[in-house]
Amino acid sequence: MAESVAIALDAMGGDLAPGMVIKGANIARQRFPQARFLLFGDEGRIQPLLKKVPHLAKVSSIRHTDIVVKSEDKPSAAARRARGSSMHLACEAVQSGEAAGVVSAGNTGALLAVAMLMLRTLPGIHRPAIAGFFPTLRSESVMLDLGANVECDADNLVQFAIMGNVFARTVLGVLHPTVGILNVGSEELKGHEAVREASAMLRNTAMPGSFHGFVEGDDIAKGTVDVVVTDGFTGNIALKTIEGTAKLYTGFLRESFRTSIMARVGYLLARPAINSLRTRVDPRRYNGAIFLGLNGIAVKSHGGTDAIGFANAIGVAIDMVVHGAIEKIKEDFARLTTTTPLPDVKAASL
Amino acid sequence: MAESVAIALDAMGGDLAPGMVIKGANIARQRFPQARFLLFGDEGRIQPLLKKVPHLAKVSSIRHTDIVVKSEDKPSAAARRARGSSMHLACEAVQSGEAAGVVSAGNTGALLAVAMLMLRTLPGIHRPAIAGFFPTLRSESVMLDLGANVECDADNLVQFAIMGNVFARTVLGVLHPTVGILNVGSEELKGHEAVREASAMLRNTAMPGSFHGFVEGDDIAKGTVDVVVTDGFTGNIALKTIEGTAKLYTGFLRESFRTSIMARVGYLLARPAINSLRTRVDPRRYNGAIFLGLNGIAVKSHGGTDAIGFANAIGVAIDMVVHGAIEKIKEDFARLTTTTPLPDVKAASL
Repeated sequence: MAESVAIALDAMGGDLAPGMVIKGANIARQRFPQARFLLFGDEGRIQPLLKKVPHLAKVSSIRHTDIVVKSEDKPSAAARRARGSSMHLACEAVQSGEAAGVVSAGNTGALLAVAMLMLRTLPGIHRPAIAGFFPTLRSESVMLDLGANVECDADNLVQFAIMGNVFARTVLGVLHPTVGILNVGSEELKGHEAVREASAMLRNTAMPGSFHGFVEGDDIAKGTVDVVVTDGFTGNIALKTIEGTAKLYTGFLRESFRTSIMARVGYLLARPAINSLRTRVDPRRYNGAIFLGLNGIAVKSHGGTDAIGFANAIGVAIDMVVHGAIEKIKEDFARLTTTTPLPDVKAASL
Repeated sequence: MAESVAIALDAMGGDLAPGMVIKGANIARQRFPQARFLLFGDEGRIQPLLKKVPHLAKVSSIRHTDIVVKSEDKPSAAARRARGSSMHLACEAVQSGEAAGVVSAGNTGALLAVAMLMLRTLPGIHRPAIAGFFPTLRSESVMLDLGANVECDADNLVQFAIMGNVFARTVLGVLHPTVGILNVGSEELKGHEAVREASAMLRNTAMPGSFHGFVEGDDIAKGTVDVVVTDGFTGNIALKTIEGTAKLYTGFLRESFRTSIMARVGYLLARPAINSLRTRVDPRRYNGAIFLGLNGIAVKSHGGTDAIGFANAIGVAIDMVVHGAIEKIKEDFARLTTTTPLPDVKAASL
């Protein structure tokens, strides 16, 4: 029997919490029989929900708190409210070793701040990054940073590349992931200093075997590389641009099928096919962005997700635990810094 | 009768040139009876093509040159090859006043360099920007910069906002366009210094009536604002991310319709509806990116476009000419700098 894995859940985070958190945990329990859950939040609301799912109740325990970080809280208010909140206590459980990872659908900025405060960054890592995965024409890819760091230097990007590589191996199961840096062209001269320096460092020293080079915006959906590395400003905008374009297409497609009776009949016949398309690009499938670079596993679920989406975010956390992702990141950084010191940044870029 | 408008065409630029340029000009001629064309390029190849379209031949004249900037030329090679090329001579015709605008489907970097050299920037404008338009859930929007400036300060972004506003009025026909700055969140504190400063300047001084504030990646396709302002790095990546996501959707949709016989039949019935969707998002409809901020009209067509797409790019140039876009940009800048001097940037952002 597999060793049990305890996951701390912020039961109060997300638009549909705590209901969707409990239902999501119950779906995850069926997929991961080794999972146990620590549910942080309002016992008065969680207990009745948990009673309805006795199998989940058996592997769960409730840790009561009245304090909740609200999704609409501004960063400063969120930070004030964070202490003693369901989010804070859930992260604390990872810090103390009681849980192997935390999942929250709450306020992203607050979760990042609390997770950084409680878990700290891994030795040698300057900044954590938010990593997510999404469908491509080829299969699935990872992108980071999705918004933790608005400005990044070459060192940050190199570190993201190494961490993203581990994420692709552990969560996507890619044996030898390829890595690209997002840029405005594929030629070496393109882009600003940070991407050019990072590219030189990755090509020459940090990951000569698996570094593909620069990729462009259309390479994200093409799946040209397994790991797309970028700063948090560009990554956040690219991620939301994908979401927006997907909605535009879905909206236009829906309108198209309403233009004539023939089109409606066609829609009815093709519905299973269209539903399979929907499933393929279902954002719930790709729910669960991870804060990489912390000394512990913290996964951010989309705030508006349902139980199915939340279960997938729990799955990301469990995959990271089971595959020892934190240890792998530590190993990769140790190997890099002991055997092949990073080159002088300025020199490498010339 | 409307006054005639002379457009200089780089007949040799683009994957399918010169054939698609001549055919595109012929389509544009039917839409714009006032148009005349100066065709720059290899007379031996252009003349036989022009003979087949006598109506176009009547309003066109060929200016021979053997020199062509290649699409695969690196920037340095393109610059060397540019002098005396079809691209260079076409831009020169605008500088001399012989033509009112230039359209080329050639090498983007070379065209930008040549157009800047020949036409110069307008008084007070620090950097030109590449602006394009695209479909949204609401109607159509403009985005700039799409790649002319990898790094931008607050002043650049403010100038792009003012120029984008004129573009939306003249080419999209929006009476009072709204303008937003692309960012990682809508709150005032979000993003890096340049976007925060530019936002404060636009809100307080430059365009208090029409500045919406920050928009996010998903607002591009939503059509939240008529003009999306961003630096050339982010804009280029957002643009290509939209293209990539659109292709992913089209690809997945095609695969879906092949999954069963029922789906194939459904596809046949719904085909007119699906074709109307295709038309709606057809990149040829949105072909024609303009270099805004130059003292003359220069339009870049997609290199891989066909005659229909190229005709649309010519249409963008003619719209800009007919509506006196350059004069409007000059007026807006003059008004801004004489009556309401730009505030001290640092102070405005606090």
